[in-house]
Order: sequence, then C-alpha cells, then structure tokens
Amino acid sequence: MKISILTVGDEILIGQIVDTNSAWMGQQLNLTGARVVTIITVGDTMEAIHTGLREALEQADVILMTGGLGPTKDDITKKALSEYMGVDMVFHELTFQRITKMFEVWGRPMNEAHRLQCYMPANAEILTNKMGTAPGMWMEYAGKVIVSMPGVPYEMQYLMENEVLPKLRQKFQGQPIAHRTILTVGEGESHIAEKLEDFEEGLPEGFKLAYLPHIAQVRLRITGSLADEATLHRILDEKAEIIRSRFADIIYGFGTDTLEGAIGVMLKERGLKLATAESCTGGYLAHRITSVAGASDYFVGSVIAYANEVKMQVLGVSAATLDTHGAVSEQTVIEMAEGAVKVLPADIAISISGIAGPGGGSDTKPVGLAWIAVSNGQKTRTFSIRAGKDRDKNIQYFTIHALNQIRQFLKQL
Amino acid sequence: MKISILTVGDEILIGQIVDTNSAWMGQQLNLTGARVVTIITVGDTMEAIHTGLREALEQADVILMTGGLGPTKDDITKKALSEYMGVDMVFHELTFQRITKMFEVWGRPMNEAHRLQCYMPANAEILTNKMGTAPGMWMEYAGKVIVSMPGVPYEMQYLMENEVLPKLRQKFQGQPIAHRTILTVGEGESHIAEKLEDFEEGLPEGFKLAYLPHIAQVRLRITGSLADEATLHRILDEKAEIIRSRFADIIYGFGTDTLEGAIGVMLKERGLKLATAESCTGGYLAHRITSVAGASDYFVGSVIAYANEVKMQVLGVSAATLDTHGAVSEQTVIEMAEGAVKVLPADIAISISGIAGPGGGSDTKPVGLAWIAVSNGQKTRTFSIRAGKDRDKNIQYFTIHALNQIRQFLKQL
Repeated sequence: MKISILTVGDEILIGQIVDTNSAWMGQQLNLTGARVVTIITVGDTMEAIHTGLREALEQADVILMTGGLGPTKDDITKKALSEYMGVDMVFHELTFQRITKMFEVWGRPMNEAHRLQCYMPANAEILTNKMGTAPGMWMEYAGKVIVSMPGVPYEMQYLMENEVLPKLRQKFQGQPIAHRTILTVGEGESHIAEKLEDFEEGLPEGFKLAYLPHIAQVRLRITGSLADEATLHRILDEKAEIIRSRFADIIYGFGTDTLEGAIGVMLKERGLKLATAESCTGGYLAHRITSVAGASDYFVGSVIAYANEVKMQVLGVSAATLDTHGAVSEQTVIEMAEGAVKVLPADIAISISGIAGPGGGSDTKPVGLAWIAVSNGQKTRTFSIRAGKDRDKNIQYFTIHALNQIRQFLKQL
Repeated sequence: MKISILTVGDEILIGQIVDTNSAWMGQQLNLTGARVVTIITVGDTMEAIHTGLREALEQADVILMTGGLGPTKDDITKKALSEYMGVDMVFHELTFQRITKMFEVWGRPMNEAHRLQCYMPANAEILTNKMGTAPGMWMEYAGKVIVSMPGVPYEMQYLMENEVLPKLRQKFQGQPIAHRTILTVGEGESHIAEKLEDFEEGLPEGFKLAYLPHIAQVRLRITGSLADEATLHRILDEKAEIIRSRFADIIYGFGTDTLEGAIGVMLKERGLKLATAESCTGGYLAHRITSVAGASDYFVGSVIAYANEVKMQVLGVSAATLDTHGAVSEQTVIEMAEGAVKVLPADIAISISGIAGPGGGSDTKPVGLAWIAVSNGQKTRTFSIRAGKDRDKNIQYFTIHALNQIRQFLKQL
C-alpha cells in the first residue's frame, strides 16, 4: 500500500512550526507495512491544496492529510476537498451534538464558527475525534482513499491509532511485516553495533536490524517480512532473545515500554515508595515519573531544591558541605538523597545536582556535569555524568541517567 | 520569488528523522522576502527524485534540494539530476583536491566512494562547502534554478547563509515580506477570532492574519508584503498595536517569547522569588519555569506533594481540610500555597491540585478538574479549570493555566 502524506499550513512553509506529524505518521505506517512514498506540504489556499491533492493522488493509493480543519477563516481544507472531489458540503448533525456536549462540559459558549465546523464533504465517513472538536474524515475518491485529520498532534495521533490505521489494515492486506523493538539505556549506538556485527550478518533474507538512538537511549528494531506469519513471529522472537541475552544489563523494556514505566513496575513489585530531590533537573525527573498513569501508587513527591537555602532548610544538607564541596558535588547529592528519605515518606530517594547551562560552569565544574545519588537510608550509591552544552538536552540527558540509576539500584535490592 | 523545497531521503519517509531542515530554510527564505510554496519529500530512488523535481519545478522559480549527496550507495541525487536535465556527469578536479586536503588534515584515508563524489552534472556551478566533503551545486535549467545541498543540517546552513541566499538575493529581487506574532493565553481561538472579524476585514491588500492555537494558547500572526519596506513595517506595527490594545489582558508576549520567560522577566523586575507546590502536575510546572536559562535568579524550588502525607508533613496542609474537602479542592490549594510561602524561601508560591487521569475521577470531581492558588502570604487568589480526559494533555493544560495565573497575580502587584 503506497501512501502520500499531505500537510496543509502556511506555518510550516514559513518555518514557524516543524512538521513532526509526518515523522510520527511515517513511523506508524512503516510498522504496519505501508510505504510512505512522498510527504507534501502546501499553503492555506484552494489552489495550493488542489495541486497537493493532484500530486499526492498520482503517486499513492491513500492520501493522509493533516491541518486546515480549525474553526477560523484560514482553515479551508474541507472546502478544498469538496471542490476537488466535486461533492457538496452537508451538515453533520451528530458531530454538532458531540461538539455541543463538549462545550457544555467545558462550561464555555459555542459560536457560529463551531457550527460551521460541522459541514463536511457529502462522501465523508466521519471519524470521531475524542480529543477535540474537528472530526476526521475518510473519503473514497477515484478508487483511492483520502483521509483528513486535524493538525494538532495529539488529535491526529488519536485518530490514526483508533480509526485510520485499523481501517487501512482492513482495506489493504500486504505480506505481513512485523517488528521487535528492544529498548536500551546508558550505552552508545556504535558500541552496541560493534557487538552485533555478527548478529546482523546472520539475519535471514527479509530481516533487518535498525538502530534508533535518542538521548542516552538506543532502540534496536528487528523488522521482518515473510509470507508465513507464524514463521515470521518465531524468527523475530528468537532474534530478540539473542539480543536480550547479550545486553541484559542495559535493556529496560520492549516495544512501547518506557523507562519511567519500567521503574514503576519494579517499585510496585517490591512494594517500595520513591521520592526525588532535584536541583538541575528542576522537576523534570518528577514529571517523567508522574507522566505514568497510576504513579501515585509508588511515587510520593519531591523537593525541588533549586536554591541552596532549600537544600539546607528542607533537605537538611549542611552548610559546611555546600561551602567545602559546592552544590554540584558527590557529598551534596549524598546529603540530598539521604535527607529526602528522612523528610519525605519514601523508601528510596534519588537526588541530582548539576550544571544545566548555558551559564554557571567553571574549569573544574563545567556545564554538563551532574552528580546523582540513590539512597534507601542504609545504602547510598553515587554516579557522575558529563553531558554537552545545550540546556534543554542536558536536562533530558541528566533525567534519563537518573531514571537509569533508580533502575540499577532497584535491580540490586 | 517562489521556492519549492525538495528533500531526498527514505529516513524522513519512515519517520526516523524529523525534517527540521525545511523549517530552518523556510524561516530564512521568508525573511528575505522569498515565498516557499511547497515542501516535498521523496525517497532515494531515481523515479521518486524525478517525480519530485517535476512537481517542484511546476510550482516554483527556484528548487532547493537537500539530501542524497553522501558517499554511500543510496545517495543518488546527482545522478538523478543529470538524467533529469539531460547533461553528463563530469569530474570536478578542484573539489577532488579540496576533499583530499580535508582527509590529510583529518589523518584518515580516502576511498573510491569519495573520488566518485567529485563527479557533478556538467552545468553545475560548485558552491564550496567548508563544513563537509559534499559541495553544493547551483544549476540553471529551463529558465529556473535548481540548488542541491547536503542534508546534514550544519552543512546545509553553511551553504545557505554563505552561498545560496546571497546568490538568490542577487538574481531575484522580491517584494519584502514581514510578520508580527502576538502571543495569547487562556482564551479560545474562535472567541478571539470573533472579536477580530472587523480587524481582518480591514486589513489592506497583501496583509493577512493567521491563528495558531496550541494548548490553552493562541498565536496571532499578521503577515504583510509590500514593495516599500518602511511602509510595510509601519503598517505591521500599527496593526499589531490594535491587537495589543484589544487583548492586553491575555497577551503575554511577542515573536519568540515564552510564557515562562515572560514570568521570569516580571519576577526579576519586581525583585520577587517564586516557589511551586504541585500535586497533579508532578513537577512539570517547575520544569517549565526552570527551562529558562537563569531561572535560579527568581525561582527557589518546589514541593511536589503527590502523596497526601507530603501535603501535610512538608506543606502543613491540615488533615481536617483533606478529610472534609479532599485533596482536589479550593481549601487544599489555599493551604498548599500559603504553606509553600512559609516553608520555602519565596515571596510568592503557586499551588495546584487536580485529577490528571485517566483514573481517580468521580461525579463531583471528574478527570480534568484542577484547583490553583497563588499566594504571597498576605493575599491568596484561587482559580479552577476543567480540561479533558488525556493525562499528558491535562498536565500541559494545567501547567499553562498555572503559569498564566502567576502572570495575572504579578500584574496586580
């Protein structure tokens, strides 16, 4: 099945927004065995959308459009579609009722623009969007399929996962493709690849291994395609098991697992409660932990000790330690973690103090340096890391390593 | 001058890489008055590149290509170009000498693939790439210009800034385009649009207004194009001022400002220190505040009180309040904010408690409900919000509203 992605929006052409939607869609489609043959972005005019549609339809069986469905005047995708396909726009009563209910729940008034949002091309099958007001639309035209979705990422993702991908799978059935994804943390891509050279060479016809690195993590994806689905899955399981046994220490999960989710499972299994004491990560570590639904079962809270007074007054770090060793030091993170276990109702606490940058570095303590400690009150482990110069990336890099240190500590309990 | 951007690379179609190059190019071109009319991404095959070239040439005067110039087998842009234009490939001696020198400096051996990199379409003018081995190429074809650049971002950026943009400016003298972007928070797109209907209708020829919504925020972008640059900027300033005066209360900044940055400026101006006391946002509010470089000047820290014990033991919320009103209540957030001002060395504290979901909701307190309080110890303001059912989105929505409440509180001091 060949797919064209067609993105509508001046904001992408002028570079105000980076088109992350297409990358997300490309990944998802690739997993299902569909092939994206082109991604086309056009502006918010009738002519541009018509040109985009013509080109997209020439190359593919399915056109996935995003953008231009909002209630404002520059959102004209639906009108462009109805003109292109030569069908009328009709009022969709069920969508109107659904939007009306959403506004009731929000306690906000609806206006005329929202009513106009309920007009759709007559041949459109409505795909219910539980994440926003604009529904998705599935249209069959000239023997091909055109799907229109909002450009808001979480709305598009909801529609893709719950409506579009299942319908595409039903309509087009190619030779089965399947994947196994193995998730690692704390080791570089090239070091892993070195240890998998023989593995890659030994993969049978139709199978391949990809390395997908992302901030202190590498996802290893084995993809296979075979006519016989049972054999396909058997080989993938065997290959995944080889990787699992070689890299047990750095693997935290598979498929769509997350590092924070894996830690949650470990804490629940052990009946332990976690707290964080953060300086340089400024709450991002707690945020990652609490992004998991149900985190309140094992996460009690944090002290974000950005100022030294908070390190002293709330966590009990001694003034002498801060004076002698500084806020970014092994001694300080030990006192932060041990203080957090005392002050907060937790069994285990992790602390982190570092220099996220761009300012605040020195020769002995450069931007990108961080110290981490994990403690359960009896035993305290420390760890130091060196990242780069970019503040945002450093905060993320520190946080991934901190999550990994919690995992390592829990494994040894 | 109309521009098509043509990106070559399977890695973008399968979503392994997000195409940030096109956004960067769009921004730069827009500033020079050129107009990007389409962005097309195609795969690493002759046929795909030829289709992309045909479509790109149909719509624009200039095609800016990136990708497919590396020394590996799947990089075939140059061959596709020479076939499409019907010209031979010729060996470019100067490029070969330049690459040879680079390898000498690096102390690494050159191989046959690097020598093959020196073959170029015969009509190509070479654009020297000081950042890597693959040069850029400027080709005139069928009255139009085709430029080919490497896909590596810093190499492409070097060539754009030092070669391509100056040459484009020389060849095409377009009419200047400029923008004003006004940033709002806390009011919906359609409600703002309703109040700007007359404004939109009154915009002169060549000017337009766009609404760019994103989680509780709407960016308003006025774009104009006029031959006379001084008049263009004068009109844009006047129009931006009209919007500013109509929506003073919901505007937090302009251009690339951020809400957390705007709060930082307000705190520094007033010489005040801020703290947060978070439950449902789990540290994300503190993270947003500390994502600003230099936040330590005005942010002291947080208590993330996920468990009720932390609300009581660290922030001093009374057991009676939690029993009578529950953790998600106006009374609880008041005690959390007032407690945080006492416990942490801050002048102002914001607290938030809500139900991020997906679990934990009830009829009277559904998923998506949150209470916020801001206090300076003397005065405490409260605010409640209703979001949807998606955990990630709720955490972001709560956080934006919390940042906005800090802004509102500071404005009234």
